[in-house]
Amino acid sequence: MTKFGVHDTPLQELFGDAAFEAFDDAGVGPDEVEALFFGNAMGGQTENVTHLGPQCATHVGMAGKPVQRYEDACATSANAFKNAVEAVESGRHDVVLVGGVERCTPETGKDTDEMTRIFASASHRQYEQPTGLTFPGVFALLTKRHMHEHGTTEEHLAEVAVKNHGHGSLNPKAHFGKETTVEEALDGPVVADPFRLMDCCPFSDGAAAVVLVSDDLADSFDAPVDVTGVGHATDIVPLADKETPHVTKAARDAASQAYDQAGVSAADVDFAEVHDCFTGAEVLASEALGLIEDGQGGVAAAEGRTSRDGDIPINASGGLKAKGHPIGATGAAQIVELTEQVRGEAGEHQLDGVSRGVAHNLGGDAATTVVSIMEARA
Amino acid sequence: MTKFGVHDTPLQELFGDAAFEAFDDAGVGPDEVEALFFGNAMGGQTENVTHLGPQCATHVGMAGKPVQRYEDACATSANAFKNAVEAVESGRHDVVLVGGVERCTPETGKDTDEMTRIFASASHRQYEQPTGLTFPGVFALLTKRHMHEHGTTEEHLAEVAVKNHGHGSLNPKAHFGKETTVEEALDGPVVADPFRLMDCCPFSDGAAAVVLVSDDLADSFDAPVDVTGVGHATDIVPLADKETPHVTKAARDAASQAYDQAGVSAADVDFAEVHDCFTGAEVLASEALGLIEDGQGGVAAAEGRTSRDGDIPINASGGLKAKGHPIGATGAAQIVELTEQVRGEAGEHQLDGVSRGVAHNLGGDAATTVVSIMEARA
Repeated sequence: MTKFGVHDTPLQELFGDAAFEAFDDAGVGPDEVEALFFGNAMGGQTENVTHLGPQCATHVGMAGKPVQRYEDACATSANAFKNAVEAVESGRHDVVLVGGVERCTPETGKDTDEMTRIFASASHRQYEQPTGLTFPGVFALLTKRHMHEHGTTEEHLAEVAVKNHGHGSLNPKAHFGKETTVEEALDGPVVADPFRLMDCCPFSDGAAAVVLVSDDLADSFDAPVDVTGVGHATDIVPLADKETPHVTKAARDAASQAYDQAGVSAADVDFAEVHDCFTGAEVLASEALGLIEDGQGGVAAAEGRTSRDGDIPINASGGLKAKGHPIGATGAAQIVELTEQVRGEAGEHQLDGVSRGVAHNLGGDAATTVVSIMEARA
Repeated sequence: MTKFGVHDTPLQELFGDAAFEAFDDAGVGPDEVEALFFGNAMGGQTENVTHLGPQCATHVGMAGKPVQRYEDACATSANAFKNAVEAVESGRHDVVLVGGVERCTPETGKDTDEMTRIFASASHRQYEQPTGLTFPGVFALLTKRHMHEHGTTEEHLAEVAVKNHGHGSLNPKAHFGKETTVEEALDGPVVADPFRLMDCCPFSDGAAAVVLVSDDLADSFDAPVDVTGVGHATDIVPLADKETPHVTKAARDAASQAYDQAGVSAADVDFAEVHDCFTGAEVLASEALGLIEDGQGGVAAAEGRTSRDGDIPINASGGLKAKGHPIGATGAAQIVELTEQVRGEAGEHQLDGVSRGVAHNLGGDAATTVVSIMEARA
C-alpha cells in the first residue's frame, strides 16, 4: 500500500504504486496475473473519471485482461477482494490482482464541503440526503442509540481516538503520525453530537493492492497467508427502517458467515482491523464481530483491552481514524495489514504472536459489510 | 425491462419496475433469490447516488442479501451478468437477480451538455478529456479509420440508422418509435464528423433485469433459455495507444472466448444485439463478432443483410440507436431481448426461427467488451 495522506498523483499512477509493490512482494509480473478486481468509490464525482479499471490495468501492464470495477461506498475494495476470492476458489483464475484507489483530499479539486456532499451520495437519495444527513450524522445516530442503550460515554469514544492515534504513530504509512489525549479529544469542536473532531477519520488519498493466488499455487510463493473466510451481507436502507440500528446487523451476518467458513469463533481471533470511520463505529464493530461483549465496546477501549498490548488488539495500524480513509482503498489496505501482521512483517507496529486476524469493512448506512478472516498458512 | 425513454421515477423504483417484472416472469419472489448483481454507471455523477445496490435491494424486498454494484461505463450490466453467470456456474448461488438502471435525461437535473461531460468521464482522464474528446468523437475516430481502410461511406452509416429505426418502430419499449430515411439521416446536423444527428443514440432512462438460475434448477422454470458463453476482455486506454483501433480488439477477444465456451462459431449465430451507440459502432461490432466479413459491415447494412429479414439480423430491438441507451441498463436489456427472441416472445419485432443469439456490450474507448451467447435450452 502507499502511504495514506495527500497525493498529487493521478489515480492510475497512485494505484500503480501499490500494484507494483504487490507484484514485487509476490514475485510476479503483470503477464502472470490473469485478472484485476478493482475498487474505486467516488472517482466519477471527485475527478470525473469512471471506467477506471481498464485505465489502471493499462498503467500496470495488464491491458486486455478482464478487469472489473467494484463500488460499495466505503466497502468498495473489500467487495473487490470478496469477488476475487470467489473467482479463485471456483477455479476460474489462479493468480489475480485485487486493489483499490481513491483521492478524497483537495488534490481532487473538491474542498471539504463538496467532498462531504459527495460522500453523502452513499446514503438514501430520497429519504436521507434531503434532510441534510451526512455521514458524521449517520454514525452519530447509531452511536447515540448505543449510548442510550448501554451507557457508552463521550470519554469512551475519546479513548478509541487516543488508542488509534497511538497505534497510528507507529505506522509510517498512516495519514496522522501524532498521538492525542482524552482531554484534547473532548476539547475539540463538535462535528455531529456526540462526535467531536477527533472522533472522525480524515479524507485521505491512497491505494492498496494484493496478489491473490489459488491454494494449489500458494506454496510456490514466499510467505503466503491463508484467506479462510469472507462474509458479505447488506442491511435495509434507509437507516430509519432498521429495527435496531446500533447492532449493525449486516456486520453480524457477514461475521457469522466468515467465522463459519473459517471454522472458528470470535474467541479464536488474535487481532482485528475494523471500519472506524468514527470512534463510535469501532465500538459497534468490536461488538458485532463478537470480539467484545455487547454494550462493552466503549468500556473495553477505555480499559485498554483493544490496545496493541490488550487481549484483543483492534486497529493496530491506526485504523481509518489515524491511518486514514481513501475510501476505495480502505478494504484492500485492511487485507495488506492482516497479511503483514500474520507474516510478522508489520515493522514498528507489529503485534506479538498473532496468527489469525479479522477485517471488517463497512459501506453506506451500515448497509454493506464484508468480513474477512486471514491466518497463518495451515 | 421498462420502456426506455424519459422517466421521472427514482432509480430504486425504476429498477423495481424491471425487477418485479423479472420475478413475475420467473415465478419467484425476492425470498427465493439469493443475491443481486447490480449495474449502474453514472448515478453518482447524475443524481449524487452511490451505494445504490442496497437501496435497490431494499426496494425489491432483498435487504440483507449480498448485493454488488458493477460499473464498466456502457458495459456495466453486461459485466454484472458475467459475474452472476460465474457465481451460479461455480455453485455459489442457484437463483440470482441481475439487472441495471440508469437515468440520463434532463429528469436527472443535468442537461445534455452536462451529461456529455459526465459520459466523457469514461475516457482517459489525463490524455483524452483535456483535449475535449467526448464519445461522439471517440467513435467518430474509430469510424473514420474504418472508412479510410475499407471505403465505408456516410451512406452506409445512414443505412444502419434507417434499419435500426425501422426495427425500433416495431418495439413498443423503444425510446424512438419512428422510422427515418437515408435522406433525413444525411441531412442532419454534424455531431462529430462523420456522425450526424441520426448516427447517434439518445440519452435514455430505463431499467432491465433477469433472473438467472443454475442449470440443475432451470427445468423447474417456464421457458428457460441457456447461457452458453460469456466472454470479457479489455483493451489498452487511451485510444491513441491502440495499434489498430477500428478492429476493436476487446470485442474480438471477448467473442472468441464466448464462441469457444459455447462450442459454436459466428456462422452458427441466428441474430445479434450489438452496442450501436453510434452507427459506426455497429459496423465495427458486426465485423468483430465475425458476423460480417472485415470491412463489409457498412455494405452489409446497406444491402439489407443485417435487417430483420436479412441473413444475420442485427439489433432487431432497434438497438441503442432507436431502443435507447440508459447506460447501466443496456447490457441487461440485451439479455432480455435475447431471451425473448429465443423464446419466440418478442411480439411485433419477433424474428423468424431464431434459436441462438449473441449480445455485444461495449464500455469506454472500446476498452471493455462483454459478449454473451444465449440459445434455446438443449
